[in-house]
Amino acid sequence: MTAINLNEKLNMFDDFWKPRVIAELNGQQVKISKVKGEFVWHDHKNEDELFYILKGTLRMEFRDRVVEVTAGEMIVVPMGVEHRPVATEEVWMMLFEPANIKHTGEVKSHLTVDSYEKI
Amino acid sequence: MTAINLNEKLNMFDDFWKPRVIAELNGQQVKISKVKGEFVWHDHKNEDELFYILKGTLRMEFRDRVVEVTAGEMIVVPMGVEHRPVATEEVWMMLFEPANIKHTGEVKSHLTVDSYEKI
Repeated sequence: MTAINLNEKLNMFDDFWKPRVIAELNGQQVKISKVKGEFVWHDHKNEDELFYILKGTLRMEFRDRVVEVTAGEMIVVPMGVEHRPVATEEVWMMLFEPANIKHTGEVKSHLTVDSYEKI
Repeated sequence: MTAINLNEKLNMFDDFWKPRVIAELNGQQVKISKVKGEFVWHDHKNEDELFYILKGTLRMEFRDRVVEVTAGEMIVVPMGVEHRPVATEEVWMMLFEPANIKHTGEVKSHLTVDSYEKI
């Protein structure tokens, strides 16, 4: 039971699209990630996913709309909804999601991470 | 699926120790709360609880130690661990916890909230 400092954790890496786990509770994980550019279209069949933006503006693309989420804002992407996160400029974000979630759902891409480093 | 702005939500109330639900996912809830003063000693038998500090410094008291958690930091209180949040100055925070959690566990106090407003 210690204080987890997000900036300290964010300063431990500078690659994009590779979330790190910083906390676990109730079968859920808190991850942080730096992202830039376009991710891959995917959904998660059984998991809702929360994105909380710490820095920059994330453009969350859905098949029928786009939602811009900026620092201090969050968005929940419900299970089964296809989405593609896009960051024109570098974005830092925190994710809340079930511990067993697959990074890119059933889609495989060169960006897919199979296991998450804990920091 | 919209952007949820935390400051906008936080500006909708100014009472203390009355968390509001701002998002739900995977059987969990995201709440925000403003707190000042001493809360009540309690634990949650089956729920872990995450506190993410948005403003100020929360003093999280445990029976055997105290952890100071300041803006930009989080702490996870595991199930079954007695704790008492204390805020000398006003603190704004975000909570992440199961939707069925009881505010003060099995303890009843004048601060206990039985149901949470969704904003």
